[in-house]
Amino acid sequence: MSRLPLMPVEDAIDRLLTMAEAQWIEDSEAVLLSAARQRVLANDLLATLDLPPWPNSAMDGYALNVDGWDGAPLAVSQQVFAGQAPEALAPGTCARIFTGAPVPPGANAVEMQENTEVLEDGRIRFHQPLTVGTNIRPQGQENRAGEVLLRAGKRLGPFELAVAAAQGCTHVQVVRRPRVALLSTGNELVEPGTPLKPGSIYNSNRTLLSHWLSALGCDVIDAGVLPDEPRQTRLQLEQLQHAADLILTTGGVSAGDADCLGQVLRECGKPLLWKLSIKPGKPLTVGHFGSVPVIGLPGNPTSALVTFGLLARPYLLRIQGVEDVEPLSFPVSVGFPWPKAGSRREYLRVKLQAGRAELYPNQSSGVLLGASWADGLLEIPEDCTLQVGDTARFIPFSELF
Amino acid sequence: MSRLPLMPVEDAIDRLLTMAEAQWIEDSEAVLLSAARQRVLANDLLATLDLPPWPNSAMDGYALNVDGWDGAPLAVSQQVFAGQAPEALAPGTCARIFTGAPVPPGANAVEMQENTEVLEDGRIRFHQPLTVGTNIRPQGQENRAGEVLLRAGKRLGPFELAVAAAQGCTHVQVVRRPRVALLSTGNELVEPGTPLKPGSIYNSNRTLLSHWLSALGCDVIDAGVLPDEPRQTRLQLEQLQHAADLILTTGGVSAGDADCLGQVLRECGKPLLWKLSIKPGKPLTVGHFGSVPVIGLPGNPTSALVTFGLLARPYLLRIQGVEDVEPLSFPVSVGFPWPKAGSRREYLRVKLQAGRAELYPNQSSGVLLGASWADGLLEIPEDCTLQVGDTARFIPFSELF
Repeated sequence: MSRLPLMPVEDAIDRLLTMAEAQWIEDSEAVLLSAARQRVLANDLLATLDLPPWPNSAMDGYALNVDGWDGAPLAVSQQVFAGQAPEALAPGTCARIFTGAPVPPGANAVEMQENTEVLEDGRIRFHQPLTVGTNIRPQGQENRAGEVLLRAGKRLGPFELAVAAAQGCTHVQVVRRPRVALLSTGNELVEPGTPLKPGSIYNSNRTLLSHWLSALGCDVIDAGVLPDEPRQTRLQLEQLQHAADLILTTGGVSAGDADCLGQVLRECGKPLLWKLSIKPGKPLTVGHFGSVPVIGLPGNPTSALVTFGLLARPYLLRIQGVEDVEPLSFPVSVGFPWPKAGSRREYLRVKLQAGRAELYPNQSSGVLLGASWADGLLEIPEDCTLQVGDTARFIPFSELF
Repeated sequence: MSRLPLMPVEDAIDRLLTMAEAQWIEDSEAVLLSAARQRVLANDLLATLDLPPWPNSAMDGYALNVDGWDGAPLAVSQQVFAGQAPEALAPGTCARIFTGAPVPPGANAVEMQENTEVLEDGRIRFHQPLTVGTNIRPQGQENRAGEVLLRAGKRLGPFELAVAAAQGCTHVQVVRRPRVALLSTGNELVEPGTPLKPGSIYNSNRTLLSHWLSALGCDVIDAGVLPDEPRQTRLQLEQLQHAADLILTTGGVSAGDADCLGQVLRECGKPLLWKLSIKPGKPLTVGHFGSVPVIGLPGNPTSALVTFGLLARPYLLRIQGVEDVEPLSFPVSVGFPWPKAGSRREYLRVKLQAGRAELYPNQSSGVLLGASWADGLLEIPEDCTLQVGDTARFIPFSELF
């Protein structure tokens, strides 16, 4: 039995990203801010405004001009609320001013009201000397008109959309959603809501991946369950190849006689079966059917989850132009021994408890419950054993959506 | 000038959670799995099936009965594909079997095909002895019918919805969405898409919070911008108090004359102005208008972001019954000096670079760009200075959605 070396996870990611760069989606569309969350910016977002658009007060207090001022009490010549356009400050006076209000032309400092006192004649006494700029947020402090605020390829969340709103934008130009045809393979799969036949199981990968794809900004083409039959598989792939940017399958990638997806790809396409150094996972089909890329994930739910999160996710972000596709990860202390080194890199479902990674008891690749229980994946390198208190790399699941 | 002690962030969270527990949303609804992401489970999800529903093969290979077997080659009496219901294993034979296929009654081990050989007469020679259970995933390995799979109060993401699908569920019973009336206060606010008047700025908090509320499963009632005028503020709050589970405002919570929300709450409701030990942030209005809770966030975008993420988010999850509302956080090494201790706990916008937290140069509370640049918040405790290489607590933004 020959044992080819397994492909390291980083190599697989690099190859997939290279593939993705040949598949960049160039179409874009203008979308309302309210509908743009989880989309990817198609063009740099340029500032059209200085922000703040005018110098404004950081405090409730009094605006004055400190040049040549001797510290004497000042009469109040105007009141400026937020949203008002002040007049120029009359020389030798101060202006009552509120947080966020524009600083009157001619004023160059604001004293907070807590450091002042209103005299009987209405003049304001200041308790301490002031320097130019105190409590003033200068015009353009955040950005200048013309600056790049967000780069093309930025994923848009609440913060980015608020940045666009602060410029007065109603729309953003975003990359067209990737269209992902989602196919499950396997005669044993039955859809939820229908009776479970003997020998069959419910299809959970469709639900898992549909939601995950949506979170990554993709449109899902539900292409159903493929029977384990080569001719029908071929027909279905032919129909999808013009509708989809990616054909994503689960199941049907082991070497068994019953795996006809691989067979069809070998006959009609350019199949690559990658034996990955990853557990759960290992066999990943990557290639093209005609011109459309195909990624075939393993069928076991946890294998599908790990390979989708670590391998398909960066691909799907990169075809949208996202530069930064790597999840944050953290060194954490391990709360359990790992006495048996594995030849593949292992991704364990763990929960962080008092700062330590604790293991879900059943790490079988068929067991999906562990992922729901866990906070993320703990990476155990190839040929590595661990003792309690050793450190390993932790990837929070929240970083994979 | 009196200096009341500032309220620590944990105390504020505790008080808000106590408030939330008096406001639990008891209504629930059945929702299709495809529409249930980011909702919260209303009842425990019980397994209706053993999973797997029958013992199945973990490998492509041959199923046999090893009791009393002497290791002799065996004839193949049937083939079992995934999705088929096998017959009982004829004594003295083996069954060709594929990954995921049910193990025939009477068989108690599966040998992977790589460890076998097909003889000329079709019989299978096994290269090694086998023990009971080898390569068989037992019935109920993941769960038994009747077990609790997911507890009420679980937030539903792709993994949890896949767990429900694996049981054959088409719907899940989820907590009614919280209805959050979102109000901005301040005459200076102009909606994106309209011209910017002198002294005004565009409203970005509405966009920030609408998207964030949606991600937390809430329905947003867009209640517009309140003018800084007490009578209209009161009228608007009266209308909202029967439509909303929470009135969430931004701005209008400083002590300035122009802050009429606080004034109205003092007159009509039960206002609590909390001076928090938090920067950016500090003033937070928490109370009730009639029977409806009100949370008033500061108006500066970054202050609104930090106080929403750390304080309003746990409240909104807890009224949906979510038990675990604390974001994951990690000790990280600090890549910049922090020479000046502050009296308030500070949340800096930082990016992790080579494992170190690096600071966004402008940490002003008006500056939203830093949050988009950053990976998360670095917590600097009260009265604390830091040197490069010291450790501080980091909260990834991904954990706050």
